[in-house]
Amino acid sequence: MPDSAAANTASANPSSSKPTTTSTSTPPPPPPQHKKALSLETINQAVLQVEYAVRGELAIKADKYTQTLDAGGSAASDLPFTKVVTANIGNPQQRGLDQQPITFWRQVIAMCEYPDLMGHPLADKIFPPDAIARARALHKDIGSTGAYTHSKGVLSIRRKVATFIEQRDGAAPGSVDPEHIFLTAGASAGVAQIMSVALRRGEGVMIPIPQYPLYTATLANLSCKPLPYNLTEETRWGLSSKVLATTLDDARSANVRAKALVVINPGNPTGGCLSYDDMKKIVQLCYDHSILLCADEVYQNNIYDRENKPFYSFRKVLMEMEDENVRRGVELVSFHSISKGVSGECGRRGGYMELVNIEQDVVDQIYKMASITLCPPVTGQIGVDLLVDPPKPGDASYDLWHEETSATQQGLKDRSAYMSERFNALPGMSCQPAEGAMYLFPQIDMPDRALQRAEELGKPADVMYALELLGAYLWAQVDARVRQLTFVVGGLADATGICAVAGSGFGQEDDTYHIRVTALCPGVEDYVKKIETFHKDFMAKYA
Amino acid sequence: MPDSAAANTASANPSSSKPTTTSTSTPPPPPPQHKKALSLETINQAVLQVEYAVRGELAIKADKYTQTLDAGGSAASDLPFTKVVTANIGNPQQRGLDQQPITFWRQVIAMCEYPDLMGHPLADKIFPPDAIARARALHKDIGSTGAYTHSKGVLSIRRKVATFIEQRDGAAPGSVDPEHIFLTAGASAGVAQIMSVALRRGEGVMIPIPQYPLYTATLANLSCKPLPYNLTEETRWGLSSKVLATTLDDARSANVRAKALVVINPGNPTGGCLSYDDMKKIVQLCYDHSILLCADEVYQNNIYDRENKPFYSFRKVLMEMEDENVRRGVELVSFHSISKGVSGECGRRGGYMELVNIEQDVVDQIYKMASITLCPPVTGQIGVDLLVDPPKPGDASYDLWHEETSATQQGLKDRSAYMSERFNALPGMSCQPAEGAMYLFPQIDMPDRALQRAEELGKPADVMYALELLGAYLWAQVDARVRQLTFVVGGLADATGICAVAGSGFGQEDDTYHIRVTALCPGVEDYVKKIETFHKDFMAKYA
Repeated sequence: MPDSAAANTASANPSSSKPTTTSTSTPPPPPPQHKKALSLETINQAVLQVEYAVRGELAIKADKYTQTLDAGGSAASDLPFTKVVTANIGNPQQRGLDQQPITFWRQVIAMCEYPDLMGHPLADKIFPPDAIARARALHKDIGSTGAYTHSKGVLSIRRKVATFIEQRDGAAPGSVDPEHIFLTAGASAGVAQIMSVALRRGEGVMIPIPQYPLYTATLANLSCKPLPYNLTEETRWGLSSKVLATTLDDARSANVRAKALVVINPGNPTGGCLSYDDMKKIVQLCYDHSILLCADEVYQNNIYDRENKPFYSFRKVLMEMEDENVRRGVELVSFHSISKGVSGECGRRGGYMELVNIEQDVVDQIYKMASITLCPPVTGQIGVDLLVDPPKPGDASYDLWHEETSATQQGLKDRSAYMSERFNALPGMSCQPAEGAMYLFPQIDMPDRALQRAEELGKPADVMYALELLGAYLWAQVDARVRQLTFVVGGLADATGICAVAGSGFGQEDDTYHIRVTALCPGVEDYVKKIETFHKDFMAKYA
Repeated sequence: MPDSAAANTASANPSSSKPTTTSTSTPPPPPPQHKKALSLETINQAVLQVEYAVRGELAIKADKYTQTLDAGGSAASDLPFTKVVTANIGNPQQRGLDQQPITFWRQVIAMCEYPDLMGHPLADKIFPPDAIARARALHKDIGSTGAYTHSKGVLSIRRKVATFIEQRDGAAPGSVDPEHIFLTAGASAGVAQIMSVALRRGEGVMIPIPQYPLYTATLANLSCKPLPYNLTEETRWGLSSKVLATTLDDARSANVRAKALVVINPGNPTGGCLSYDDMKKIVQLCYDHSILLCADEVYQNNIYDRENKPFYSFRKVLMEMEDENVRRGVELVSFHSISKGVSGECGRRGGYMELVNIEQDVVDQIYKMASITLCPPVTGQIGVDLLVDPPKPGDASYDLWHEETSATQQGLKDRSAYMSERFNALPGMSCQPAEGAMYLFPQIDMPDRALQRAEELGKPADVMYALELLGAYLWAQVDARVRQLTFVVGGLADATGICAVAGSGFGQEDDTYHIRVTALCPGVEDYVKKIETFHKDFMAKYA
């Protein structure tokens, strides 16, 4: 008991030496009985509506398996698999996947983190000269990586982003304003920043179905309404103007203002790349209906067929619209990230957003809100510098950089093609080939008995499929300390330890069933074989 | 124009080869006229209510001065000062301040970022063995710093945090649950996470006045109500039970539920350290009224007089309450950060929060919401590891670590004492000595004519004071390209280039006026002398 401190205060603070206000002449009301302040009934009810399947029940169960396997012993050897394959999340550098960090990135960042390295007499035995030069330049601009930066991010990096965008889109030098570029803690943080400023409760946002669940989660949290527009699976998840118009009509009938429209291009989970023509239609629609266009372009560097299905940015398409009113009118926010592409630096939390045609006083409000979070992580900002300004031919690091990034690109492309081909060869499974991003979204032709069983379990059939694929029902039994592990849902031997997310987490057409798997997993033949065996058994079991 | 791509899609996508839905038999309504989707009238109106003085008008103007000075030329030489002193924000490693990063931290982080360094044959010529060992251990637990971690943060680091808390508070080993510790992207991110889950629109949160404006900003954004409780300036910004009771009464009268109570200890901007006794009263009050206790304890390691005014955590006080119902009943969230203390690693965005006595299903909701942001920045998490487990006596890095951190502690303490002494010697200024944190919050006895002038300008008098101190009125004239730079508010020669935040940004008792200055600036004699000269001129001018 800190008597001295208490005494010290009592003498210094007149109010603490007096009885409290509750013991003055008139007796106060008794304090209300204690109840917890927070319960599911009393917290923000919007939170309860939020769903985020990528890290939901399945991921939690997969985590427990991993812990069980790591711990070893009989619980581990009871499991019918020796490792968990995390195909549920686009996390390329995750343990168990084989994407290595880009050497140039890590060399530069290590020197920025410990600047003594740049000046160390041994530096040139460890680092190539262009890495040292880049680290010196960044250190000069940024100072310590331990200091807050400008809330929009380091100005010199924002200037480089502007140049990158101009060159990517063939735009005039100086046409992109660095003051309208905000560095972010990844694209997700940028999306949350924009949505929370732009939207009022009850307003609607057009989102593709299937979508990345960040969007529905963010909208639920803001008490806003998703206005789904279904992508057309048969056309590699293409856009349909008719569907977009119907979505708008439905919103109008329901008296919901369509305030913004989200496009994910290349698509997550679909892997589709939009055509230039479809993008123009989206831009025109946003103009006609005064809709903010939010372009999630984080997979812009994950393109499998650059000749036939290249990436166009929405900025480029917008700036090439014929009507000047459209070019100046459509408000666009475009998001990019260091987490995907060939860098895959998810844990660093870095990215940027560009605001186009947004009124200055709204930009100022976005800046004010960004300032409350102080600044994006500094090495995430450095990652953006490295993303938009990689080594050039002739630089000391170029060859290694090229080798590393090409291997990553090629690996993704090859695995994706192999997987979709094999999935399409399976009875009861069909899969659109992906044109980009890092996922496949095969459809499962669910047998009637599987639908019945899912209904009994109170789960969507694709969730049941994903849980059986992982082997999660087994886990429930281990939890309950029941040792008869088999026959719980009809075949423990099926469990693969593969963690894939059910389509219902992303949204899908009624009465269709999908799973999303990443194309990141090494040993793809073995991994696909496990899925094939499981799938055939599943189909036979419920035939 | 990408004809091939467009043609490719047109043939693949039936809907794009048909006319859109707007050209079917019945003519559709014409699209509404284009208006921008986003304007101050149409965005989320709660955003307009948000204020964040630490990075507001003054900081923006200071930024422009810095850019002008960096650019050189006549605009720079017109200014009556040669550097901007950023005393507005607790950013210890900012350029121009002299706090250097802790060497051990940066060595470990550099190796985690570029693991080849650990195994490099030259490693032991560059890094001490304990830094290499720590980097190896972290790399083993985390894997790549470029991968997402668990959304609560790396488990092994959360376990270390639990041990740190137990040892700090003298609690039993194993009494802190790592599953109730969430690593965060700094304390600000943690506060936003908790508030956004805990609060419903219209609910109230008791906040100290003065406060760190993060709290009012967060509440405005959530459409919640601040319920201010004034700290008592004369008792070194101590707590008054009477004031707390009055605040609760006022809330009750206004029919506002007091859902949570924020305490900042040590205080920002006040520098006050709460006594154990006052803390017990807060805990009891939270129990009596079923209020969530949010303890902002980010300055827990910035304590100037550890014997007489030590730091106690609210967790410790809570766990030592006599009534078991209180110990088990009061819901506490405590925030800590790597941005303050002796590390000052603001730019890394790292910290943690501990949830105590929060119901498990609410913890699950907080986890779900954390999972949407995927994970805190990984090197911020590593920073937490280094914060809670620094080098020990006998370790190779201990002596240097001790020397570096002691110098930082002593520098803060000495500057703080020197500044408050000098401020108190000034006519028209009084200043409570700080007991901790990194700020001083002197009061200005504002002359009547200054109040009149401020009213004419439409600004609070302390904002006018802070703007004159910086020299910001000059800037407004340069902006307008008027070259008669003097006499705008009565004396350009006063302008110091010192950026300090007005008290009204933090809240203060009616008819009192303060500024907040950091105790971080090097060359403190010179810096204080500038403030003294300015202040005397200011008082004389408005006498």
